[in-house]
Amino acid sequence: MNATLELLNSHRSVRTYTPDPIPEEHILRAVEAGQAASTSSAVQAYCVIRVRDEGERRSLAELAGPQEKVAVAPEFFVICGDTRRHRLMTRRAGLEYSGNLEAFLLAVIDASLFAQNLCVAFESMGYGICYIGGLRNDLARVDEVLEIPEGVYPLYGLCVGVPAEEPSHRPRLPASSVLFDDRYPDDQAMLEEIDRYDEGYSAYRVARGASPGTWSGIMGSKFASPQRGDLGPYYRGKGADLS
Amino acid sequence: MNATLELLNSHRSVRTYTPDPIPEEHILRAVEAGQAASTSSAVQAYCVIRVRDEGERRSLAELAGPQEKVAVAPEFFVICGDTRRHRLMTRRAGLEYSGNLEAFLLAVIDASLFAQNLCVAFESMGYGICYIGGLRNDLARVDEVLEIPEGVYPLYGLCVGVPAEEPSHRPRLPASSVLFDDRYPDDQAMLEEIDRYDEGYSAYRVARGASPGTWSGIMGSKFASPQRGDLGPYYRGKGADLS
Repeated sequence: MNATLELLNSHRSVRTYTPDPIPEEHILRAVEAGQAASTSSAVQAYCVIRVRDEGERRSLAELAGPQEKVAVAPEFFVICGDTRRHRLMTRRAGLEYSGNLEAFLLAVIDASLFAQNLCVAFESMGYGICYIGGLRNDLARVDEVLEIPEGVYPLYGLCVGVPAEEPSHRPRLPASSVLFDDRYPDDQAMLEEIDRYDEGYSAYRVARGASPGTWSGIMGSKFASPQRGDLGPYYRGKGADLS
Repeated sequence: MNATLELLNSHRSVRTYTPDPIPEEHILRAVEAGQAASTSSAVQAYCVIRVRDEGERRSLAELAGPQEKVAVAPEFFVICGDTRRHRLMTRRAGLEYSGNLEAFLLAVIDASLFAQNLCVAFESMGYGICYIGGLRNDLARVDEVLEIPEGVYPLYGLCVGVPAEEPSHRPRLPASSVLFDDRYPDDQAMLEEIDRYDEGYSAYRVARGASPGTWSGIMGSKFASPQRGDLGPYYRGKGADLS
């Protein structure tokens, strides 16, 4: 196995960090490696806001959970889909921007390919990372705190720092449950795979001191109650036509 | 610069491949490295369909462009957001699945973090990759060809093979145009950055024999006409509530 495969496989989300700062040069390298990811027809529909202001960090930490690590991580980034540059270009050409679902999806996908490369780059330099989906708890407030303009869609946060913990590996579904030859499996076959996965997942939770629980049990109740129900109106308000 | 950073920075989309097959073991390694990426609260909301049937490949190649590489690449994968497993779990618990925009976004983001790790893993083993957004030209037909069920959202394709070309590097925006400290820049500052980028981008196009064109000119006209306008009804029809 080569060094990159080893690095990818060794990923764990790291949630506590030493106070060591990250040199500017490392941040720049990681961002450039992020930008080297594929981007649909060169649209580069993403940007990243590095949040340095302590008060702003504290506000974001509060709305994201609260999650103290957002306030205290050596670096905290907000990953955004960015259609604003395209809007500027369209307007300059005397045309009208079309913010349909394809344009929104392009931005979400482009931003996520960028973000994952960014994370792998940071990890290759010895840092630990943790995505912060909790940012979507209150995106209107994120906009207020960071004054994020129309056409820029905050998606999630990212904490980065030198690891101060060695978390255990959260088991994934077997590859046979995500990779399929030609056809998606039937429900019964999938349920049987999940039942087998449940056993190991439950053991992992107990081993790390969490309440016992199977993957299927947790997922089954998680997706029964709608979460973050205001995302549609929010992104539409930022200029995304999701119709 | 470490080996992984070098690998990330050396990425170019590769569109022609030698006929060499990819060993099963390499595919499995790449998928497992993909699965090692972060996933929001372990939801693992993705799957990948490996298209082996020649007739199906030919159909997908047609609707994606046509793009011959989709038919002839040693491997072609369809990356999907997958909410079907969660639906099965919810139903088994006697509850109702809530397919709101948050659940859809989770799937798109999770799938894209997985896909980017998958690509980096393949590249680390010497393969070249090319994302195929053209799959979204006609997702209803993709569903027909591959019989993709409710709750599974095809997002894009992925060609993989041993490179038979050495493409040049498409220049990216300067890092200063995507990484911002605390605040998104004002429009005038952004336009000036883009004007500088336009020069190099145009030179790149000419050097590779494409028609001359600036990034801002191409983006300005691209986003003036709505593309793939049927994505909203399509994904809603698959069970995603985007309201």
